[in-house]
Amino acid sequence: MEHRILDIIHSPRDLDRLSESDLQLLAKEIREFLIKSISKTGGHLSSNLGVVELTLAIHRIFRSPYDKIIWDVGHQSYVHKILTGRKERFDTLRQEDGLCGFPKPKESIHDAFIGGHSSTSISAGYGMAKAMSLKGDSHHVVAVIGDGSYTGGMVYEAMNNAGQSKNNLIVILNQNNMSISKNVGAFAKYLTSIRMKQGYHDFKKSVEKTLDHTPIIGKHLKNSIRSSKSVLKNVLYNSTFFEKMGFSYLGPVDGHDLPTLMEALATAKMMEGPVLVHVDTTKGKGYCYAEENPGAYHGISCFDVETGNPDVAAQDSYSNVFGRALSRFAGTDQSICAITAAMKYGTGLQHFASRYRSRFFDVGIAEQHAVTFACGLASQGMKPVFAVYSSFLQRGYDQIIHDASIEPQHIVLGIDRAGIVGDDGETHQGVFDVSFLSTIPNITIYSPESYAELEMSLQKALYDHDGVVAVRYPRGSEKISHRLVCKDKGNLVFEKKPGKTLVITYGRLTEQVCRAAEDLPNVSVMKLIRITPLPEQALQTAMEYEQIFFFEEGMKNGGIGQQMMCKLYEQGFQGRFQVTAIEGEFIRQGAVEKVFCRYGLDAASIRETIECGGNCEREN
Amino acid sequence: MEHRILDIIHSPRDLDRLSESDLQLLAKEIREFLIKSISKTGGHLSSNLGVVELTLAIHRIFRSPYDKIIWDVGHQSYVHKILTGRKERFDTLRQEDGLCGFPKPKESIHDAFIGGHSSTSISAGYGMAKAMSLKGDSHHVVAVIGDGSYTGGMVYEAMNNAGQSKNNLIVILNQNNMSISKNVGAFAKYLTSIRMKQGYHDFKKSVEKTLDHTPIIGKHLKNSIRSSKSVLKNVLYNSTFFEKMGFSYLGPVDGHDLPTLMEALATAKMMEGPVLVHVDTTKGKGYCYAEENPGAYHGISCFDVETGNPDVAAQDSYSNVFGRALSRFAGTDQSICAITAAMKYGTGLQHFASRYRSRFFDVGIAEQHAVTFACGLASQGMKPVFAVYSSFLQRGYDQIIHDASIEPQHIVLGIDRAGIVGDDGETHQGVFDVSFLSTIPNITIYSPESYAELEMSLQKALYDHDGVVAVRYPRGSEKISHRLVCKDKGNLVFEKKPGKTLVITYGRLTEQVCRAAEDLPNVSVMKLIRITPLPEQALQTAMEYEQIFFFEEGMKNGGIGQQMMCKLYEQGFQGRFQVTAIEGEFIRQGAVEKVFCRYGLDAASIRETIECGGNCEREN
Repeated sequence: MEHRILDIIHSPRDLDRLSESDLQLLAKEIREFLIKSISKTGGHLSSNLGVVELTLAIHRIFRSPYDKIIWDVGHQSYVHKILTGRKERFDTLRQEDGLCGFPKPKESIHDAFIGGHSSTSISAGYGMAKAMSLKGDSHHVVAVIGDGSYTGGMVYEAMNNAGQSKNNLIVILNQNNMSISKNVGAFAKYLTSIRMKQGYHDFKKSVEKTLDHTPIIGKHLKNSIRSSKSVLKNVLYNSTFFEKMGFSYLGPVDGHDLPTLMEALATAKMMEGPVLVHVDTTKGKGYCYAEENPGAYHGISCFDVETGNPDVAAQDSYSNVFGRALSRFAGTDQSICAITAAMKYGTGLQHFASRYRSRFFDVGIAEQHAVTFACGLASQGMKPVFAVYSSFLQRGYDQIIHDASIEPQHIVLGIDRAGIVGDDGETHQGVFDVSFLSTIPNITIYSPESYAELEMSLQKALYDHDGVVAVRYPRGSEKISHRLVCKDKGNLVFEKKPGKTLVITYGRLTEQVCRAAEDLPNVSVMKLIRITPLPEQALQTAMEYEQIFFFEEGMKNGGIGQQMMCKLYEQGFQGRFQVTAIEGEFIRQGAVEKVFCRYGLDAASIRETIECGGNCEREN
Repeated sequence: MEHRILDIIHSPRDLDRLSESDLQLLAKEIREFLIKSISKTGGHLSSNLGVVELTLAIHRIFRSPYDKIIWDVGHQSYVHKILTGRKERFDTLRQEDGLCGFPKPKESIHDAFIGGHSSTSISAGYGMAKAMSLKGDSHHVVAVIGDGSYTGGMVYEAMNNAGQSKNNLIVILNQNNMSISKNVGAFAKYLTSIRMKQGYHDFKKSVEKTLDHTPIIGKHLKNSIRSSKSVLKNVLYNSTFFEKMGFSYLGPVDGHDLPTLMEALATAKMMEGPVLVHVDTTKGKGYCYAEENPGAYHGISCFDVETGNPDVAAQDSYSNVFGRALSRFAGTDQSICAITAAMKYGTGLQHFASRYRSRFFDVGIAEQHAVTFACGLASQGMKPVFAVYSSFLQRGYDQIIHDASIEPQHIVLGIDRAGIVGDDGETHQGVFDVSFLSTIPNITIYSPESYAELEMSLQKALYDHDGVVAVRYPRGSEKISHRLVCKDKGNLVFEKKPGKTLVITYGRLTEQVCRAAEDLPNVSVMKLIRITPLPEQALQTAMEYEQIFFFEEGMKNGGIGQQMMCKLYEQGFQGRFQVTAIEGEFIRQGAVEKVFCRYGLDAASIRETIECGGNCEREN
């Protein structure tokens, strides 16, 4: 049996006994562990390889859980999980009942705040720091945030608020020069310029003299500062963006140089008021394939460690179909623009981006701005299409109401990852968009099932409507075995059979419903494609039935099932109407089909519900 | 008859003929017009008095509607409305079918983008500028934004995106040192410091020399620049926050000095790429009472011009009752914190702020941050209460889901201006909160009718629940004549009469329902106080009726009526259930009672609906 330092690390305090060289060795072991483990489970690799030394330094200098460590977004929290007693469960990562791929307070006392969405850590951290100071607790709050997350406006709201305080808040800005897509915007340029600036030779001598008389800054940090001309200015001349926002600034620090990192953090710990430590890391550090192509190893499924090759061949996806279709339309229509909030590849917009560069906009992780920017484009005659994950669109809710709908602007929302997303769990589920969008007056929502319907829906969204039109589609690939085919340009598909029972659904769930109903001779099936406004034909047809079952991959309250049910009863419907949807809880991680089972949305459960006439209780 | 210059101004181009002294005279006339007119209609006074010269300068230098002028928030757009052909209708301001108090493209081609919510103008403006450049249109987009709006994160998202472009976007930052509450945060300090900085004597000579060789900068601006030491640095040494974000910077310029303003704008127009013009104005300028106390004249009802006194005595309000109750609880409970997003007075938190300063937080116009900051506080054992207008809470929707509800944090949302708000119109209606909140798992929502119920609901929110608890209440004062009194600590009030008809409602609408039903001997009335989750007792009681009418001051889709209707039918309810609520449109401005009439929610319409058994059609 191989002796590893990693094997004796069960809590962050086990780090205290290690020498500097042992820590370096441990960093190497952690990288090996990460690569091996993620190659089997899939997960976020590049970002975690980038923060190995940083995480070690944080846990060496700060005392979790008394000091609170917050990971913004949180896909870079694996090393933290390994060091805080979860190494043995790491092979369950992102699986049902396994370790969460993001920080989760329910999972460990060392996860100080939930992660998943971007740009929240400084707000949460400032709240914690403020509460601790009100209670007389002098521990620290450390928020670790990537430069990608720094494009979200919430960061700025939080800095503006925290920057005037005297609290023990330390923000570690991890500049790896890459969000999931390439980082964008004026701020990214500015950050890079901090490292690039030249021309402070004249100040150097007096700065060095000052440094020599500043005992709280350690040796390694001093050397690091000396070696970087830009730092001379940034540390000592109050000139950075961050200092204008009220934060003391330390950096940039080499994020793979453990001794310097530890000294910088120890210095930050001694300073009064909010401090920003600017750390420079390399995504994918230590695994050649990931260093070369960090984007490909950002979120990855299983892969072969030796070759770096993924185990499964890449399949086509709704995202790619959407992106290719949009490119095709844009070829003949010069008014079409495409917008992404830092998810060019995730939303399939790379096709568009490479062909129509002047009409492609990556605005950063900035969904609020993306929606209103689209409205500005639309008001001057362009046709903007904002492709965005359902869960992240929640950030643009007010803008969809206020800027896009009151004075209607014709914008198209391509809502990717709609419905259940699987491994990412609670924070990423796309189960709210139908409820929060369908309440807004004048909106149109399509929820296609197949690639063909997706293309058709996008075409309608671009050419048949005004105002806000959403087209929503699930994560992953089309998996359809049934024969319910939309042959015309209708808003629904209806398979009529004898009998007085009708099952209604929309989107991906149609496959489950069709499998459930395929050999039930008296059960008709209706698939809605346009779900808002409800097609008049759907209501008329439904009125003819006595028993209606509605299955929905989304929240029950505010969902289409409830809306349709109410409309029917108000029109005098006398029969039975039952809605099966998500209700009363957030959806834990797990494979999509398994999650379907949990909520009675898989083919077998659906069949059971239909056969019992809605009177049976599901067993689990 | 008096001869006024104002009388010959029917479009912005009429300004072109005026001499500088005529423009000065016109400014004076506009101020008199504003004071006189708003004293009769009510409206936003201080902010408009502050931008008279700025608006004149903008319309003199730019060519609306070819150049696009966007007013952030937009309550400062009155002068713009006066100059763009709406002077004659100004006495209809904020009334039903009258002029809107905010920019409204439907109202005039000169209103380039909708206004109402904060911090959207740069996003919209950048979208317009980008579209115009794609179409080869070389006109300009001018976004006017106050320093208060600059605390919203969306501004930063937009600058980050626009700052790297080459488009004709001019942002005018109007620093009046006052949002609706006093301005807050590190950025406000920084802005002030721009004007205060000293110590650039050494550069002065070379700067002056440079200025003399820079022909595009006009005489007045040169003099203005010469007279301000700080500007020397800011204009010419690329050191401001804005220049780090990619914007050229001009300023600060005296916002009441017309010739300098016009030169600065003409200069900005000649510059390439995005430009920020920093203008310094005085809120309430020219009306002594408003200058002395701009907050009191921000949004004001009718007042006496001579004395400045309001026509009506100040009434108590839900906001004040809420604020005083919260203060009372905080007196014995050290964990209670209060948070506002720049609405200390509007939400009645001034009581709390003056008594418990260390636990009061004005975070700026930053609802996203406010919610997550509250979560941070809650995670460390505090009880944060975020008081916020319903319409503005839409900005915090994602944070309520992601940061507050998944790992539940016990935070209280005091939702002010819930329901119909009246004069402010479409952009400010509080009719979405019930739908967007009640979809979220584990949330609790109270919708009290009376002051007493409001206090009771707040107490329950603080002490009887975990997770997110919302207490929502209308704008203005309690107006209750009926006797439906909540005597116990229940979640509903039920007045049972003989017969099989039940009317259900909640909140302020109870008064209308009670008046409608008071002499109907066979109609029972139920008032819900806790609306989410629905009280079990409400469902049980309702099951005993044959005919149920539900009246709701909010959107029908996703509302409580629909939710209750579905629950009842799923439990086997056999009767008739009809929901009357807002459906399918945004609510235009108008007095609350008149808006009730529009949607069948006034006592007379409600009575009609009940008497016709839901089968009658309302006439308008």
